[in-house]
Formats: sequence, C-alpha cells, structure tokens
Amino acid sequence: MIQTNGKKIFESLQGNADALYVNCGCLMRYATGFAPEDGAVVVDKDGVTLYTDSRYIEAAEKLFAGTEVTPTLWSGKTKADILKKYKTVAVSFQETSHAEFLQLKEIGVELQNADEPLSALMEKKNEWELSRIEKACEIAEDAFLMLLPQIKEGMTETEVAALLEYNMRKLGAQGLAFETIMAFGAHAAVPHHETGDAKLRFGDEILIDFGCKVDGYCSDITRTFLFGDDNKHEEFKKAYAHVLRAHELAKEKITSGMTGKQADAVAREYLKEHGYGELFTHSLGHGIGLNVHEKPAVSPRSEKVLEDTMVFSDEPGVYKAGEYGIRIEDTVTLKEGKVKSFMSKTDKTLIIL
Amino acid sequence: MIQTNGKKIFESLQGNADALYVNCGCLMRYATGFAPEDGAVVVDKDGVTLYTDSRYIEAAEKLFAGTEVTPTLWSGKTKADILKKYKTVAVSFQETSHAEFLQLKEIGVELQNADEPLSALMEKKNEWELSRIEKACEIAEDAFLMLLPQIKEGMTETEVAALLEYNMRKLGAQGLAFETIMAFGAHAAVPHHETGDAKLRFGDEILIDFGCKVDGYCSDITRTFLFGDDNKHEEFKKAYAHVLRAHELAKEKITSGMTGKQADAVAREYLKEHGYGELFTHSLGHGIGLNVHEKPAVSPRSEKVLEDTMVFSDEPGVYKAGEYGIRIEDTVTLKEGKVKSFMSKTDKTLIIL
Repeated sequence: MIQTNGKKIFESLQGNADALYVNCGCLMRYATGFAPEDGAVVVDKDGVTLYTDSRYIEAAEKLFAGTEVTPTLWSGKTKADILKKYKTVAVSFQETSHAEFLQLKEIGVELQNADEPLSALMEKKNEWELSRIEKACEIAEDAFLMLLPQIKEGMTETEVAALLEYNMRKLGAQGLAFETIMAFGAHAAVPHHETGDAKLRFGDEILIDFGCKVDGYCSDITRTFLFGDDNKHEEFKKAYAHVLRAHELAKEKITSGMTGKQADAVAREYLKEHGYGELFTHSLGHGIGLNVHEKPAVSPRSEKVLEDTMVFSDEPGVYKAGEYGIRIEDTVTLKEGKVKSFMSKTDKTLIIL
Repeated sequence: MIQTNGKKIFESLQGNADALYVNCGCLMRYATGFAPEDGAVVVDKDGVTLYTDSRYIEAAEKLFAGTEVTPTLWSGKTKADILKKYKTVAVSFQETSHAEFLQLKEIGVELQNADEPLSALMEKKNEWELSRIEKACEIAEDAFLMLLPQIKEGMTETEVAALLEYNMRKLGAQGLAFETIMAFGAHAAVPHHETGDAKLRFGDEILIDFGCKVDGYCSDITRTFLFGDDNKHEEFKKAYAHVLRAHELAKEKITSGMTGKQADAVAREYLKEHGYGELFTHSLGHGIGLNVHEKPAVSPRSEKVLEDTMVFSDEPGVYKAGEYGIRIEDTVTLKEGKVKSFMSKTDKTLIIL
C-alpha cells in the first residue's frame, strides 16, 4: 500500500494556512507517494488532491484507490484556478523557484513558508520510510558483494561503476541515489572524484561511494579497499585502521540527544588525536531520506539535536593529496537512543582482492 | 578542452547587471563546464570565478588551467562576502529557490532576472554542444542495438531497463538523462509508465523511452517494437505505420522559421486525418540540452520560432488505453533550415524480435 503523508503535513501547519501546495518531485512523493513529471498536490481540510495530466492519470487512479488521495486531471485548469479560493497557501520556499513564487503571488493568495514544519516531519522517519531505506541499503550492499569478484585488472572506473549500477538495478533499485563515485589509486584522494577512464592496475586502491533509491528513498555507502597488495600501502593501511576505528566509535558513542556537533566530534577528536585531524576535510555525516542530502547535518557547526528515527550517514574520511583517500560510510538510524546501522552484510576489515 | 560560456552570458546581460551569480548544477555547467555539489559561479567584467570546497578544488584547478575560469576555495567566505561589492546581480529566477532569493536580498544587492538572456543563449547550441548531444544520441542508439539480442522471454521490465542502462554506461554515458521507461504489453498505453516487475511474454509489444548524458548534455529516444508476433497485432501495426509516417513527415516538413505550433501541426494534422487525433495526447516535442526538457516547446500552444542549431524531440505517439501504445522519438536539430536527426543507426521499420 502506498504511503501518503498529505493530511499529516496539513495538520502540522496548525491552522496557519488554508491549504498546502507542492509541485516538486520530492514533496509530491512525500505527500502522496507518487511523483508525476507534470503534477501538483493540494491539501486542505477536505482532503488531498493530486493534479496531473493524461499521461499519468490511469496509473494514479489505480495507485490511489482506497487512499486519502484523489487524483484529478488538470483538464485545462491552471494553478490560479485551483488556488484562488484560498486566502493563505503554504508552500516550501526551498523547493519553489522565485519565478514560480512570483506567479503564485499574482493569484492573490498569501504565501506562507512550509519549510520548517515540512523538515520537522521529514527528518524523522516512520516505519514504512525506514523499511524503504533499509531495502535501499540492502540492495547497495548486495550489489557491492556481487561486484567484488567481477572486478578485473584493466577495467576502467566507468566500467566498474556501470557493473555496480547494473547489479543494483537487477536487485530491484529504482534508480541511483546520486552519481556513483568510482576512484582508482590516487584519484581516491579527491573526495568527490569524477568517475573516468582510468584503468585498474594491480596494487591500486579503490574507493566507491554509491547508493540507490527504493520508492524514492535513498541509501548512501562508501567502501575503500585494495586491488591486490603491492606492499606499498603501509601508510594507507595505518590510516585505514584509524578511519575504521573512527567510523565504529561513531556507531558506539553517538546517542539520541546529542547535537550534530557533538556527534561529529566523536570521530573528529579520535582522528585528531591520531594525527589525521587536518586530513579529515568534511563533516561526519548528513541526513538521508527522499533526498540523499537533507537534515540533520552531523557537522562541526550543527546545533541540531539528533533523535530516534532520524537517518544519517557515518562517514569519516582521510585524504592525502596525490597519494590516497579513505572513506568508510554506512547509512544509519537512531533506535532506542543508539545507532543502528542499515549495513550489516559487509565486514569492514580491509578487503584485499 | 572544457567548454565555458561564462563571459558570453555576462555579455548577453548588456550591462544591466554588475555580476551574474549561479549555483545550480545546470547553470554552473553551462557557465564553466563543471558542476561541483557545493559551488557557485560569479561572472563580472573582470572574469569568471568558480567557488567550491576542498573536495573539488584539486579537480577544478586541473580542469580550468588555461581557461577563462578561476577556481577559488570558499575558505569561510559566504555568499554575502562574494556578492556585497556589487550593486546589481543577475540570477536565474527559475533556478533560484525563493528561500535563496530572500537570502540574497538580505545582502543588499539588487537582483535581476537572468532567465530571458540565459534561455535565449541556451536554446541555440554551439558546435561543441551539438557534438555532446550527438555523442549522447550515438550511445543511446548503440545501446539499443546491443540490447535487442539480449531480450529474452520472462525478463522483467526492470531487468531489461537495467541491461539497457548498463549498455549505455559501458559505451561511455556519464549517467541517465531521465528514468528509463520500459513498458511491456498494454503498459505501453500509459505514456509515462513506471517500469516494474511485469514479465515479458511472447507477442508483447515493448515501448522503451530512454536517454543518457555526455558532459551534462542529454539524448532522448523512444522505440516501439514487438517481441514475437502472435498475429493479434493488426490494429497495432496499422497504427505503427501511421505514427512512423507522422514522425517522418515532421522530419521532412519542419523548417527553421516555423513556430513550435506549426511544427507540431505537421504530425498532428496527419494523425488527425487518419483517425488518430484523439489518441495523440501530448506535444510533438520539447527542447533538449543540459535539461532533457527545455525550450523550445514544439506543442499546439507554442508561438516560439524554431531556428538553426536548436535541438528538440520529434515524438508523435498514439495510445489506446488497455490495448497498446506507440511512440517513435528521435532527438533532432535544425541545420541550414532543415531537420537533421541525431539518430541514423536504427531503421524504424517495425522490429519483430
């Protein structure tokens, strides 16, 4: 059964607007579980209406039978036609372009910012959302385990990325959560390396940052390992052990009630103590849901309090320009005050293929 | 060599703003050829500056050596720090969220809408852009030709889509232009069917709408064919011949100087005359570039004049609910007044596998 949050969002507005209007993919999906290319969702006290065109209406009618959502054909209706009856309309200022904001204002309705109530709802996940993220994580891990024996010397970064993405698709992923980062050798030192034509050589390190979507919900995972050991990786191996320890410490010590800053510090302090402070050049984590980057931030500046059912990444990293890069990332949640990882299938002891 | 348009965009503002500011992926790519996750581009009379963070700076410095673009670390600088020295700043109202617009206004600069000059530049492609789209089209067609012998009875829509996407990736696609639509049997009657678990059976029709990206530029192609002939496809075959004729007529008769509406009418009138008017439920085409849907619209309402070097789709379709759907789509451009297709590798005579 499709998951709809339309009424819940409207209630969270606490009577401050007569209607909620959303038309970006992510928020239409959050409100109704469906995101047609041409569509809009209006929620008011009478219910949840999804407007769409003839290309989607048949699918929508099937999908929403027996739910709170009423699919409706635009049939020549404009935004103005469906909104002018309201006095105040809540929209996401984050997800509404300024051009569209001006159009909506023209209609003569008063526009309110729905970002705070929306993000307060979206950063905490319900059981169904957690199950979608869990599934997206399972697929990512299984696809990685399928990939390991498929990796051969001479393959390009792009070829290995293509194989991994194919594995995820075959396992049921509905799409990628973001562009796969596949970095061989010293490319791994660039945290967001653009996957290219570099060929895999014996002794190369491999860093893969990838994820997929299930019903719109994302997984995000990074693994770093060696393609054979040419005995030139002493420094790498030492650093790997420390990144792994920082990654695990975060899992052990982060608890509900900590701020993002306190959580980030768990890994950051450890890496600092061991001489890697300068080389850990990004945040420990970011929220994950319908967006692969959303709230809560787990960063040195975040005062956000982490709570049960929030989902975020645990991804410490150490990068030495021109030499190596190491990042170990799981998608995790907080359950009964403690970190629970969605990634349990892969042992993180350094893999040497 | 990377393609940069920063100075050209600034010149197109004709002195109406002291600087151009863009920070969405698509416009950063148009201005500089590069689109870091965390970045912004500022163009003023002194040059083009790309701001980004430590994750991207190394790659950016390599990429922009010898170009008009100066990559610069944010180093704690905020938007306000980099923009407050200007009196007027041009931004895309389409690509700037209202939330960000409010932040920019706070800085105290006067904001101008850059959408018209930007879209006037972007809808006409230069040689390099045409070569990127051509490459993305070649990959899509080659991937389709690779796919045909790989299709087997019992495979699901998702499996066949996964294979096709894998083929595109192996051939050098940097990503998908949009979510692949793979529809078996009567699913094809839903123009934007969501690819699922339906299994392929002998005699099914197959409709595939797909495309990939090369350096950010998209291809868009649709093919409809039969997986074996169970002799129940008389009506389908008749309709296929008419859709193909409409597709070809559009190629023959659309010329530079026509409006989008006139161009759309070429295919629409033909299909109407043959009794398919009601079943052709969408526009003939849409512009294609860094976005898979952009200007110019080739639709019954578009007064836009089509010009040489514009790129758009030629995609007539006929859909009979519960029975069949047919769409034949090429990505095309206008050259010396006439339509030139980027898709020449596949004969469109009905394929029966």
